[in-house]
Amino acid sequence: MKALEEKILAEGQVFPGNILKVSSFLNHQLDVDFLMLMGEEIARLYKDTKIDKILTIEASGIAIAVAAAAHMHLPVVFAKKNKTTNILADVYSSRVMSFTHNTEYQVVVSKEHLKEGENILIIDDFLAIGNALNGLMDIVSQSGGKTAGIAIAIEKGFQGGGDKLRSQGIRVESLAIVDSMTDDSVKFRPQ
Amino acid sequence: MKALEEKILAEGQVFPGNILKVSSFLNHQLDVDFLMLMGEEIARLYKDTKIDKILTIEASGIAIAVAAAAHMHLPVVFAKKNKTTNILADVYSSRVMSFTHNTEYQVVVSKEHLKEGENILIIDDFLAIGNALNGLMDIVSQSGGKTAGIAIAIEKGFQGGGDKLRSQGIRVESLAIVDSMTDDSVKFRPQ
Repeated sequence: MKALEEKILAEGQVFPGNILKVSSFLNHQLDVDFLMLMGEEIARLYKDTKIDKILTIEASGIAIAVAAAAHMHLPVVFAKKNKTTNILADVYSSRVMSFTHNTEYQVVVSKEHLKEGENILIIDDFLAIGNALNGLMDIVSQSGGKTAGIAIAIEKGFQGGGDKLRSQGIRVESLAIVDSMTDDSVKFRPQ
Repeated sequence: MKALEEKILAEGQVFPGNILKVSSFLNHQLDVDFLMLMGEEIARLYKDTKIDKILTIEASGIAIAVAAAAHMHLPVVFAKKNKTTNILADVYSSRVMSFTHNTEYQVVVSKEHLKEGENILIIDDFLAIGNALNGLMDIVSQSGGKTAGIAIAIEKGFQGGGDKLRSQGIRVESLAIVDSMTDDSVKFRPQ
């Protein structure tokens, strides 16, 4: 999505540790008009795919998932992050290692909101290593549903998570894929 | 908002400790088509008020704030909840006591996303005692902005937070106000 690449070039900031800061429009402040355009693009990419529900993860996945759902007229379920290890019986949960924060957490979804046989589109704002996505796919699998595809705002292609998922036959659509970044340049993968 | 009252009656569940569970459409699973209608109603209520930006708090405030912002064509800033006490210099922060979880946390917003003189509409999914809202208003005040009003999906009127704010001259619009609730009945304040 050309407009997203241009927005990243205009507003994004690169910090040490492979951090691409886009908090002016995607994950602290939200440019909602622009988010709705991103949601429309996700709807277009998946318009021929049977999808029953969107799954995302709190907090910053919620906004882009809602924007896509508004165009696709689908419900969203957002997984919660739980730092405690005592998990209730009526939830699906999966353990996720966070590289950004160097901590481990549980991804949790109530069993009543994911049902057997559902086709799930997983949406998140960022894809790097792919650990959070693996946790979400694990939860879809536990529920007896099927991951119909993944949609991401910004994929950090050089961290390999997206291509690893694609090599497993999973459809991953990223609105922008960063192939390399330094203090003064961000390069995108042609799509 | 009559449609919201009907949805609460159809899907809400009352649990001990004044818990109104609406996780089927508002704060775990999201009925996005319905959220967009709620957002449209918030936009209608505040159509004659000068607002520059919407402020909400992660996680479940984000969805309703995005829905309103999509109709109002405004940016959203979502405050983050921080359980640690070490706060960076470049943020506004305020301490909030959570009655639901019986814990204390910091509400944090980066200084770059709230500016002096801005008119802020605060949006959240629930209003009970009003502690989170007080934290958000404190942050708006720290930034030199003005709280132009508050919009809430569901106010628990019997817990008094909304009326306390109104008595201070703050405009609080709640799409549904629960005046009392028991296991088998939820009663709304006429609006």
